[in-house]
Amino acid sequence: MTTTTCNGVDTAALFATLDAVRGQPSLARFQFRVANSWVSGTHNRAVISGFYGAGQEHLHEAPTTLEADHPAVLVGRDNAPTPAEYLLHALGACLMSGLGNIAAARGIELDEVTATIEGDIDLQGILGLNSEVRNGFEGIRVQFHVKGEAEAEKLADLVGQSRARSAVYDVVTNGVPVRIDVATM
Amino acid sequence: MTTTTCNGVDTAALFATLDAVRGQPSLARFQFRVANSWVSGTHNRAVISGFYGAGQEHLHEAPTTLEADHPAVLVGRDNAPTPAEYLLHALGACLMSGLGNIAAARGIELDEVTATIEGDIDLQGILGLNSEVRNGFEGIRVQFHVKGEAEAEKLADLVGQSRARSAVYDVVTNGVPVRIDVATM
Repeated sequence: MTTTTCNGVDTAALFATLDAVRGQPSLARFQFRVANSWVSGTHNRAVISGFYGAGQEHLHEAPTTLEADHPAVLVGRDNAPTPAEYLLHALGACLMSGLGNIAAARGIELDEVTATIEGDIDLQGILGLNSEVRNGFEGIRVQFHVKGEAEAEKLADLVGQSRARSAVYDVVTNGVPVRIDVATM
Repeated sequence: MTTTTCNGVDTAALFATLDAVRGQPSLARFQFRVANSWVSGTHNRAVISGFYGAGQEHLHEAPTTLEADHPAVLVGRDNAPTPAEYLLHALGACLMSGLGNIAAARGIELDEVTATIEGDIDLQGILGLNSEVRNGFEGIRVQFHVKGEAEAEKLADLVGQSRARSAVYDVVTNGVPVRIDVATM
């Protein structure tokens, strides 16, 4: 029996999944969901549990609870990371997960991969003090360090290919339509 | 002594912060940061600890560790939420934190606020199976339920104003430049 695992990725299963979706594209339709509840002030708590994909409903192995808050310097209670930091985490994690898959698909053994994600923001925007300043980050920088069993160019190309296939990178750089509805009680 | 807390927000401190930034706009410059490390396959772990803002370095009350992974149906090990779910959480949390602040600033007592955030995605994009399909979400829907001590129109307007001043909503709908650098070892 041949082992098909590389860097913790079952590459045979990965290629079988690609073949399955190629044969039945509707399997690629996914819906991800988060349920958020206000706690107090800027503090809120979200649960991530179920999602739809590959033609059926799924539950994660375990639900995850994520809190968010503003820091004290922004008049919050600092119970948890800020929403803006979660956005940076989503971007870094998406690039890192993709890199793991791509390295495995290419048979490149990884030794150590780290990434720092930094976002600069001028809060005059969200504070409503300067209409010339946007609400969001002005720019985000990601610095990868990749150590693995391949020449430098091939290691660097893992990051390039991950960026080219990253869901969160696409959303964060190109934007996506967001519809917001409100029901009052 | 007059109490200045509404919904857990110290509104006197909130208005004092606005005045301070109005007087010295450089205080509004913030930088948020995340440090991510690859674990195995699509599994990775990030730490959120320090940030810069209001003219100095800060540490959160406690560092937060966030894991991410792909689910089994996507050949991951489902150790944690997906990066795409963290993005939805960032959006929902930002709108919710903003709503908490705005309600307090307007003196509207909140009883209960919830939001569900859903994102639809066709994975043919990130799987590289259809060049017509984008990598990211096609669209995101947010459904708020707001219960509070004000008429329906004023409660609904809290969500509208939060959207108008949301950092993450701005990034997710309009996009932001992302620079990625790689160092190999």
